[in-house]
Amino acid sequence: MQHIAILGSTGSIGTQALEVIAANPGTFSVTTLAAYHNDSLLEKQIEYFKPEIAVLVDKRAADRLIRRYSGPTIILTGEEGLLAAATYNKVNTVLTSLVGFAGLKPTLAAIKAGKNIALANKETLVAAGELVTQLAKEQNVKILPVDSEHSAIFQCLQGESIKNIQRILLTASGGPFRGLKREELEHVTVEDCLRHPNWSMGKKITVDSSTLANKGLEVIEARWLFDVTYSQIEVVVHPESIIHSMVEFLDGSVIAQLGKPDMRVPIQYALTYPERIVANYPRLDFKTLSTLTFSSPDVITFPILQLAFTAGNTGGTLPCVFNAANEEAVYAFLAGKLRYLDIFSVIQSVMESHKIISIPDLNDIYDADLWSRMQAKEVLKAIRE
Amino acid sequence: MQHIAILGSTGSIGTQALEVIAANPGTFSVTTLAAYHNDSLLEKQIEYFKPEIAVLVDKRAADRLIRRYSGPTIILTGEEGLLAAATYNKVNTVLTSLVGFAGLKPTLAAIKAGKNIALANKETLVAAGELVTQLAKEQNVKILPVDSEHSAIFQCLQGESIKNIQRILLTASGGPFRGLKREELEHVTVEDCLRHPNWSMGKKITVDSSTLANKGLEVIEARWLFDVTYSQIEVVVHPESIIHSMVEFLDGSVIAQLGKPDMRVPIQYALTYPERIVANYPRLDFKTLSTLTFSSPDVITFPILQLAFTAGNTGGTLPCVFNAANEEAVYAFLAGKLRYLDIFSVIQSVMESHKIISIPDLNDIYDADLWSRMQAKEVLKAIRE
Repeated sequence: MQHIAILGSTGSIGTQALEVIAANPGTFSVTTLAAYHNDSLLEKQIEYFKPEIAVLVDKRAADRLIRRYSGPTIILTGEEGLLAAATYNKVNTVLTSLVGFAGLKPTLAAIKAGKNIALANKETLVAAGELVTQLAKEQNVKILPVDSEHSAIFQCLQGESIKNIQRILLTASGGPFRGLKREELEHVTVEDCLRHPNWSMGKKITVDSSTLANKGLEVIEARWLFDVTYSQIEVVVHPESIIHSMVEFLDGSVIAQLGKPDMRVPIQYALTYPERIVANYPRLDFKTLSTLTFSSPDVITFPILQLAFTAGNTGGTLPCVFNAANEEAVYAFLAGKLRYLDIFSVIQSVMESHKIISIPDLNDIYDADLWSRMQAKEVLKAIRE
Repeated sequence: MQHIAILGSTGSIGTQALEVIAANPGTFSVTTLAAYHNDSLLEKQIEYFKPEIAVLVDKRAADRLIRRYSGPTIILTGEEGLLAAATYNKVNTVLTSLVGFAGLKPTLAAIKAGKNIALANKETLVAAGELVTQLAKEQNVKILPVDSEHSAIFQCLQGESIKNIQRILLTASGGPFRGLKREELEHVTVEDCLRHPNWSMGKKITVDSSTLANKGLEVIEARWLFDVTYSQIEVVVHPESIIHSMVEFLDGSVIAQLGKPDMRVPIQYALTYPERIVANYPRLDFKTLSTLTFSSPDVITFPILQLAFTAGNTGGTLPCVFNAANEEAVYAFLAGKLRYLDIFSVIQSVMESHKIISIPDLNDIYDADLWSRMQAKEVLKAIRE
């Protein structure tokens, strides 16, 4: 029996993970659940999955739940609660599906406690890839990717040597604005972004998909997960999202992983790895599939992807700064306080004024994250004025 | 150092294997070479690769070569020569790229002698799949597929359990007559068949590709190589021949192998397995690739594919009979003695009049092969009269 902790259980990945678990009774037990502030959904999850520990990070939300809940699950709150959920001794695998940089601390704590990580929080590897992968190696802990692209690459690498990788071909749907020119994106609204063609996801990642910032974060995540250089990573636009990514080996052979766009498949694979178990989600049908298409990303219209490559190639604290500036800019856009095209300007401006620390320790990473957010707010203020 | 025997060294697969070997000096040594009757090309191969033994099965061709050759390579002839080349004690791996049923005996001899088999002669598994795979298991010998489709499936299965296979998706270009109706194939000539869109191959296999008999043989080969049932094998028409085949696992995840249509890549993989080494053949470029398409095979126009499934599902001596009848019909067509559409009629008629032996031994297989050829000649005679 796999004993699982889900950090971010009320979000898109968390709820789909619970679907997978519910569909396979006797295979998994949900030992801890943690969410930010959705107390009503967490309460339902507690009733169904009966975890030993449940956490609401937000204290007021936790208070609300504690007042009305009288079952056996222990309800905790705050960052301490989150860390307790991540490190609880009965847990084997921690699914980290928190949004953004907030995932770093509990992920590190879980690795230190010897838990395998099913990683859906890419910002952890973007901000602190070297530290996180180094710690995982020391603790002999597996980092199993949940992102569909990284799960695809990971599946393509089964039975293969990492040293035989020539290139990673990271596929991208191209988002809802694929094919448009920069000037056509001037009046993009939050609603426009949220009409993603293939995947149903949270708001932040949906905006990131539309700007290709998400693909940029995935490039950096891939660099750390698969120990390749940035020049070995090529982004391929593939609007149908059927091929979820590919690996080219040094003999020229390319291995790809395909499927319907459905996060439950990579989530299940991360939870059952190295085994596969039956899943009854919709299957690819090549009789009706007909056509798959490919093209290069339009980096003129979507320059954030190039900023991510710059951040990754430069290294040190710059990827962390890239990520934090992007987060702040996207939240400002979602709050109606920033124009769509200025997301790029904010990130670029913050990156340009950052004094890079080449070999950062964890404190440097936290400092760089904080600095980047404050700097982003300055830039946001300047833009609004 | 890999010590290699190539049976069929002057054919399409044989010459491409020698290209691969020549491109990797120090990795392989060509220990024995065998061909049917092309003494001039074999002589050049002997000069370049300096094998210890070289064989021309045809005695007159061998005599011609022996008269003019004075080097250190030992020249042998006849079936005894072929068997000597296949079993020579210094050889590790035997590449069997003989055409047709003639590949069975030397392949069995090589397996009995403990050699790994790089199998390009699919008829061996079609005619005697159970006996051959059983013997390979007993001798703890690997059968490494060279056919691009089976190499693809084999690559997709690295690091995976055969018990987790849901389906094998065997891709087919559809051949030069894809999209045509049965009545449009009435006046097809040998030349029409030999204009294959993607692969440059020998004559027999090129005709087989155009009738989908080749895909039928591959279906039966896949059943034995990967220990699946026929209901687990689906043929997918994919005219671009970029995806060389796929495996769907029971969780719905599909793994595919892709590449430019170039037999040197699967040949090299079979010779270097489980390792991969650098190959400088043309690579896939997704910037220019643009489109991949898929559809179902047209079994009304190409009914030989269904005959193969019938032969495979029925089992016993019937697949052997299917293969032999097809060989005779194709050679009659190539000799201008049979109309294209009658290839099907010959195979069907021979299969219908066969008395199946359900659990054949090797003698039963040889008898069935011989019976099928004689029966096919009767049918051919009846058609011509």
